[in-house]
Amino acid sequence: MEWEFNEICIVGLGLIGGSFALNLKLRGFPGKITAVDINPEAIEKGIELEIIDGGSLKHSIAKSADLVVLATPVGVYEVVLEQLKPHIRENCIVSDLGSVKGELVRRCEEILEGVAPFVGGHPIAGTEKSGVEHSVENLFERAKFIITPTEKTDPQAKEKVRRLWEALGSEVIEMDPYHHDRVFAAVSHLPHVVAYSIVEAIGKLSTDVGENLFEFTGGGFRDFTRIAMSDPIMWRDICIANRENLLSSIKRFKEALTEVEKLIEKGDREGLKAFFQNAKEKRSLIK
Amino acid sequence: MEWEFNEICIVGLGLIGGSFALNLKLRGFPGKITAVDINPEAIEKGIELEIIDGGSLKHSIAKSADLVVLATPVGVYEVVLEQLKPHIRENCIVSDLGSVKGELVRRCEEILEGVAPFVGGHPIAGTEKSGVEHSVENLFERAKFIITPTEKTDPQAKEKVRRLWEALGSEVIEMDPYHHDRVFAAVSHLPHVVAYSIVEAIGKLSTDVGENLFEFTGGGFRDFTRIAMSDPIMWRDICIANRENLLSSIKRFKEALTEVEKLIEKGDREGLKAFFQNAKEKRSLIK
Repeated sequence: MEWEFNEICIVGLGLIGGSFALNLKLRGFPGKITAVDINPEAIEKGIELEIIDGGSLKHSIAKSADLVVLATPVGVYEVVLEQLKPHIRENCIVSDLGSVKGELVRRCEEILEGVAPFVGGHPIAGTEKSGVEHSVENLFERAKFIITPTEKTDPQAKEKVRRLWEALGSEVIEMDPYHHDRVFAAVSHLPHVVAYSIVEAIGKLSTDVGENLFEFTGGGFRDFTRIAMSDPIMWRDICIANRENLLSSIKRFKEALTEVEKLIEKGDREGLKAFFQNAKEKRSLIK
Repeated sequence: MEWEFNEICIVGLGLIGGSFALNLKLRGFPGKITAVDINPEAIEKGIELEIIDGGSLKHSIAKSADLVVLATPVGVYEVVLEQLKPHIRENCIVSDLGSVKGELVRRCEEILEGVAPFVGGHPIAGTEKSGVEHSVENLFERAKFIITPTEKTDPQAKEKVRRLWEALGSEVIEMDPYHHDRVFAAVSHLPHVVAYSIVEAIGKLSTDVGENLFEFTGGGFRDFTRIAMSDPIMWRDICIANRENLLSSIKRFKEALTEVEKLIEKGDREGLKAFFQNAKEKRSLIK
């Protein structure tokens, strides 16, 4: 493996940023890895875990990096980039690991215009946990990594980012940033909103029924609602940044739910069986 | 362990009935285990797997059993009990493993009046798979088993059923059958309906977006929708048998979802964060 970066600076050292650092180290990345975080404990833990070589609360630590990777909640990208901007050296590439692209990629490109090429990226991997201490070995192996180039994207920068993620074992896919947001509104952002909502509903129903219903949940419910333990700020930011697409997904989901609701109301045995059978077949196509 | 039954007949040899037989054998139940099923292959597989000692398509095989356990979809209970009734011997107890109780327990008691005591039961365990070949070792260990006595329930029969499930490692809990249905409408039936609905919505959204969205699902989505692979007939029957409670649960869920939807529409950052934070805290109380 020939590595094409000498120093990588990760901005936002949580589970994803930490896992990125950890897996670079595990794959033998010989360069330096640094991190910026607003939380000094995250930096301390990263150093203690030996997944970063240095870190700071200040963005100036990025000044010697030839790759800067945003791994903060997407809601602070613009603020973070403005703070980073004066410290970005020549020939540095800026990339990210956020779950929303579309307009956000445009904004990053605008802010970095004349400073550095931006390559939007999104690893399709994660867990419901938060924090650098929960960094996961081989998290990105065999996972998809979406690169979202625009007509402004520097082709060489894009290829360097692609090869870096291939070195981490990911399957790299290119996708238009706006299309990316429609896809992930449906398969990722919608399920999170639904999971948070069902937990909220179970809370309300506990009052209705006069029983702490959470005590009666089985394995199905636990799997079903695990993603409701995901970081609230990260998901708040995703929901707001991808608002329009997410609202369209919620609309479709409500239509489907209302369809089942009506079948149940009518006691339509054949209709319900067909609805469930159809969903089962679709779901069974993925492992 | 002193076993209190000599011959157990399981009616409906699927994943739950099969797991019941398997775990009786694993725990050293020395008596005979038989099964009735409309599918001759299920009986053949059960014998091949050595989890039942005999089986038949005919209900008359139950004639020597001192415990008959219904493990069919709940929609056929009444038909099955009518067929079993002439074959039930003296001092036999009838129990079940269904996910709906309430009115259904009343109906079972009525049908069995003067024939055998009925003890409603519901193991809080299962997987999304179907079929006796997917029977799971230790499925009921440390799982809750709900017994739903009524004022008609024979106390001795109830205690014998309780001890049998304790012997399988379950934590046995007594609950009013109507209360049971309110509890499990919320924590089990609602999540299944939601999972089937979200898969259906992702199918529709695939058309909207012009992409097979199922190809872009990550681990979160897979966990989230695993229960949508559950048996459609079993779940159709549950939804219809527990219709009123399930509709109340769906109503509460839609209210919660609409609340998040409005927060997203308004771009209410603090409100969304609080909503997600609250759900995360509630969900984190269970493992």
